[in-house]
Amino acid sequence: MAPSPRDAKPELKVLMNETAEAVNRTMDRLLPAAEMAEDRLYAAMRHGVLGGGKRLRPFLAIHCANLFNVDTNRSRRVAAAIEFVHCYSLIHDDLPAMDDAALRRGHPTVHRAFDEATAILAGDTLLTLAFEILSDPETHPDPYVRCELVKSLAQAAGGHGMAGGQMLDIIGETQEFDLGTISRMQRMKTGKLMAFACESGAILGKASEPHRRALCNYAHDLGLAFQVTDDILDVESDPQDTGKDSGKDAAAGKSTFVSTMGKSEALQRAKMLIKQSSAHLKIFEGRAEILKDLAEYVLARRA
Amino acid sequence: MAPSPRDAKPELKVLMNETAEAVNRTMDRLLPAAEMAEDRLYAAMRHGVLGGGKRLRPFLAIHCANLFNVDTNRSRRVAAAIEFVHCYSLIHDDLPAMDDAALRRGHPTVHRAFDEATAILAGDTLLTLAFEILSDPETHPDPYVRCELVKSLAQAAGGHGMAGGQMLDIIGETQEFDLGTISRMQRMKTGKLMAFACESGAILGKASEPHRRALCNYAHDLGLAFQVTDDILDVESDPQDTGKDSGKDAAAGKSTFVSTMGKSEALQRAKMLIKQSSAHLKIFEGRAEILKDLAEYVLARRA
Repeated sequence: MAPSPRDAKPELKVLMNETAEAVNRTMDRLLPAAEMAEDRLYAAMRHGVLGGGKRLRPFLAIHCANLFNVDTNRSRRVAAAIEFVHCYSLIHDDLPAMDDAALRRGHPTVHRAFDEATAILAGDTLLTLAFEILSDPETHPDPYVRCELVKSLAQAAGGHGMAGGQMLDIIGETQEFDLGTISRMQRMKTGKLMAFACESGAILGKASEPHRRALCNYAHDLGLAFQVTDDILDVESDPQDTGKDSGKDAAAGKSTFVSTMGKSEALQRAKMLIKQSSAHLKIFEGRAEILKDLAEYVLARRA
Repeated sequence: MAPSPRDAKPELKVLMNETAEAVNRTMDRLLPAAEMAEDRLYAAMRHGVLGGGKRLRPFLAIHCANLFNVDTNRSRRVAAAIEFVHCYSLIHDDLPAMDDAALRRGHPTVHRAFDEATAILAGDTLLTLAFEILSDPETHPDPYVRCELVKSLAQAAGGHGMAGGQMLDIIGETQEFDLGTISRMQRMKTGKLMAFACESGAILGKASEPHRRALCNYAHDLGLAFQVTDDILDVESDPQDTGKDSGKDAAAGKSTFVSTMGKSEALQRAKMLIKQSSAHLKIFEGRAEILKDLAEYVLARRA
C-alpha cells in the first residue's frame, strides 16, 4: 500500500496514487518470488521495495517521460530501476553500522525483519538488478539510449553521487559542516538521483538539450528543497506520519539545514527553491503543470 | 604488489604478473584518490582493490579477448570492471555480519582498516563504478557490445548469480546441503563471474557462437575446479600462503566439497574438472594454450 499523499491537492493525489500503483506492479513483476533456497534474498528485496513509499522518483521519471510521449512500458521500467536504487540505498543506510534504524515506512527495516547479512545482499542485488533492467532491450530498442541510462544512473548513484553523499553524511556525524558542505552533501546524496529520474525521461524521449537541461535544473532545486523539508520534518514530525523515528539527525549530531540556519530560515529557503524549480519549466509552455504541482506538494507535505 | 603465482610454470608466471600489473595500472587510473571530504570512500575502495590479488578474472578476460585480437585498452577496462565487482563482493563478504574476516590478501580487511559503514559504501561504489565503466564508449564504440557487457555482468553478479550464491552460502551455515546444492551454490557464487570474465572477451571480440560457448564451458569447469581446490586449501593451507585465516568454513559449519566428499575424492574431482575444462578449448586449435596452462595452475596452486 502506498501512503496517501494527503497534503497534495486532489488531482495530484489521484495521479500520485495511480503512478505509484503502476510502478508497484512493474516492480512486483521484476522481483519474482524465487522458489529455491535463496528465496530469502528475494523475500528481503520485496520487503525493502514493496512496503509502501511515495514513489517520488518514479513519479518524476514517468511524468518527465510523458512530456516527450515516451511509451509507458519503457518509462515504468526505468522508474522501477530508479526506485530499486533508492530502496537499496535505504536498506544499506538503515543498517546498524549506518543509521541503525528500526522502522522504515512504518514497517521493520530489512535487517530487523530478516538479518544484517541478508539486508546487505538484498541491497547489493537491487542495485545490480537496476542495471540489468536498464540494459535490457525491453527498456528501449536503441542501445545508445540504454547505455546513456546505465552511465547516467551509475554516475548519479556512485562515489560522486549518492554513495559519496552518504559517506559525507557519515563524516558529518563527527565533523561540523558549513552550509556549503551541507548543500553539496545533499546534492550528492539526494539531488543526483532525483535529477537522474527527471533526466531519464529526457533520455528516453531523446529530448533536445534545452529541454533536458530544464528538467535537470528543476530536479536539482526540487531535490534540495526536498532535503530541506526533510530536515524540518525530522525535528517536528510525528513518527506516525513519517513511518520512521524523529529527531534522529540531531541525536546523531549531524549537521542539517535546520541545525545550521534555523527552522524559519530553512523554510524560507525551501520556498525559494520550489519557486525557482518551477521557473525552470517555462520552456514547456504549460505542459509541465503536474511537475509544478509536485513541487508545491514537496513543500506542503507532512511526511 | 601482486602475490607471486609461484606454483605456475615459469612462462605462465611471467604472463600472470604482467597481466596483473597492467590491470592494476588500469584500476589505479579508474580509482583516482579524491581530494574532498569523501576522500575516505575512495581510500577504502583503493584499499579493497589495490592490495594485491592474483587477478585471475582479469587474466581470463584479457586472454580470452586476445583470442579475438581485441584492443588491450578495451579488454583491460572490462577486466578492471570485473575485478571491481569481485573486490566489492570480498569487501561485503568479509563484513562482521557475513564472514567477519580480519585478513584478506595478508592485509586488514576494509572494515578493519576503516570501519563497517565505509566498507559497505566502498563495496556499493565499486559495484556501481563497474557498470559506469562498461557503459562508457571508451570500453567499446559499439553500444550493442556495451549493453551486452552490462547485462551479462548484472546477470552474473545478481540474485541468480554471485549474490544469490552468497545468500545460499549463508543459509548453508545452518542447513546441511547435498552435493547438488553445493555445486549449484558454487556455480552461482564463483562460477558465473568467472564465466562472464571469459565471455566478456568473446563479447568484445564479437566472437561466433561456438567460440563463445567453448569459453563459457571452459569457465564453468574451471570455476568449479577453482572452488573445489579452494575448499581443499581452506582445510590444509598455511595462512602465510593464502593471506587469510584457515579452517573458517569448517568452523562456521559450512557444507563444502571437502566436508561432503572427503579430501581425496575432492582432489580427484578437481583434476577431472580441469581436464574437462581444457578439452572445451579444442576449437581454438592450439591458440588457447595459455588458458590450459592457467587451468593447470588452478589445480597446482597452494594459495
